[in-house]
Amino acid sequence: MSEPALLESAVRRTGAPLCVGIDPIRHRLPAGDDLQVIRDFGVRIVDQLADLVPAVKIQSACYERFGPDGITVRDQLALHASQAGLIVVLDAKRGDIGVSSEHYAASAFSRPSAPADWVTISPYLGADGMQPFLEAGAAFALVRTSNPGGTALQTLLLEDGRTVAHAVADMVHELGEAHLDPDSKWSRLGAVVGATHAAEIAELRERMPKQWFLMPGVGAQGGSASDVAEAFVDGMGVLVNASRSIIYAGDPVKATQDLIQSLREVASL
Amino acid sequence: MSEPALLESAVRRTGAPLCVGIDPIRHRLPAGDDLQVIRDFGVRIVDQLADLVPAVKIQSACYERFGPDGITVRDQLALHASQAGLIVVLDAKRGDIGVSSEHYAASAFSRPSAPADWVTISPYLGADGMQPFLEAGAAFALVRTSNPGGTALQTLLLEDGRTVAHAVADMVHELGEAHLDPDSKWSRLGAVVGATHAAEIAELRERMPKQWFLMPGVGAQGGSASDVAEAFVDGMGVLVNASRSIIYAGDPVKATQDLIQSLREVASL
Repeated sequence: MSEPALLESAVRRTGAPLCVGIDPIRHRLPAGDDLQVIRDFGVRIVDQLADLVPAVKIQSACYERFGPDGITVRDQLALHASQAGLIVVLDAKRGDIGVSSEHYAASAFSRPSAPADWVTISPYLGADGMQPFLEAGAAFALVRTSNPGGTALQTLLLEDGRTVAHAVADMVHELGEAHLDPDSKWSRLGAVVGATHAAEIAELRERMPKQWFLMPGVGAQGGSASDVAEAFVDGMGVLVNASRSIIYAGDPVKATQDLIQSLREVASL
Repeated sequence: MSEPALLESAVRRTGAPLCVGIDPIRHRLPAGDDLQVIRDFGVRIVDQLADLVPAVKIQSACYERFGPDGITVRDQLALHASQAGLIVVLDAKRGDIGVSSEHYAASAFSRPSAPADWVTISPYLGADGMQPFLEAGAAFALVRTSNPGGTALQTLLLEDGRTVAHAVADMVHELGEAHLDPDSKWSRLGAVVGATHAAEIAELRERMPKQWFLMPGVGAQGGSASDVAEAFVDGMGVLVNASRSIIYAGDPVKATQDLIQSLREVASL
């Protein structure tokens, strides 16, 4: 099976449209050797949650700050998560001119020691910057980001009545049509749509009916389970991401179970 | 001196508004151990050109595809270039929500073994995604990229008559005002403006008078020295980037000298 079908299957099996983000922040973790502590933390989160959720998201930035050794730990965690049966989303927000995006796609998808199933990518360079990721794997393109600053550019109004985010959504839909998954109704090109902008979600779903939505912003950033309700298509097509509100909870298992319960009610799963 | 003043000083000293991009592509290099060949190639380019140009641009993607060991080579080349007196532009096109951009900024600017002076960043997440890079170093934000696909999004017309690229230019100008360099007239926030869109350059310069322009697209992508003429402000403020047309030339030194000569005529340096 290819990536979108595998994701659908994993969400059905777990009954959890939830991805847990492993974003280690050094000062919130115990004392000890930086990278050893970060690796142990990530491994523990994976081991605690592997039976509950379909996927983890690994925020590359948290590891890259430690240089090559940080990348090694990032890759080890991706491998550990994959071996635990989890789908791995590499949150790297990469994107460049075509020839350079090919290298980034190879980095994400062609190294057996560091398996990623999906990678997050930037749409600013257009289709030729995104295409290489779809030829080598699957990707979520940034459409409407969860952070406050994203609004400045993404909600600007075009002369044709669309917002910039709508135009990117249409671009993602169009490019996605050329990369439909033969094993499901989804495209290999998904979209990042922040849960913090609940009022905009229905319109974005209408423009992107075949995109899996990766939805950050639930939890620490202020979004709630009910905010993502309109993103579901027959109870499917949504992967909410929660990072800090789960991994730094006193009891990550309970925090995960509670959020899954809320999401199930919303998705009618 | 801070980054923009150092860049101006280096461009004046060399009389060369030119940055050479070290984008190693494996199949264009000799046989041998991948990373050894890539390291030797980069070191040789640096050694050949260090007295001719003010800066090199290191395309992170080319190294990341080799995983942690590739990052090690990327970092070694940055250190070697810096020790050779060159300004280092890390071409990484990073950008995320604020807390994650802080990690990327730390990766670029806070590791003594891998010194970067400038990093390329994406504007799609807005000011809070770019800010951390300006607090820790200096950055070129993507405004108008050199690739064909960039046109789809960047030239869309807004209801107020601006294009998306103009709106990003205005955002970059505004954010840049809060990060002016005390040692020069420039901002710590520069802009990537492709040399392949000559007709759009004058307008972008008008909107961004205090931004250093990093201008890719000359050479292999089809732009020429004369295409960037309108980007200069009193002969300064432009760093043309050429990668493949220099590093894969039969004689990289001569290719560099020839391009510098063309740029000097255009800039009236």
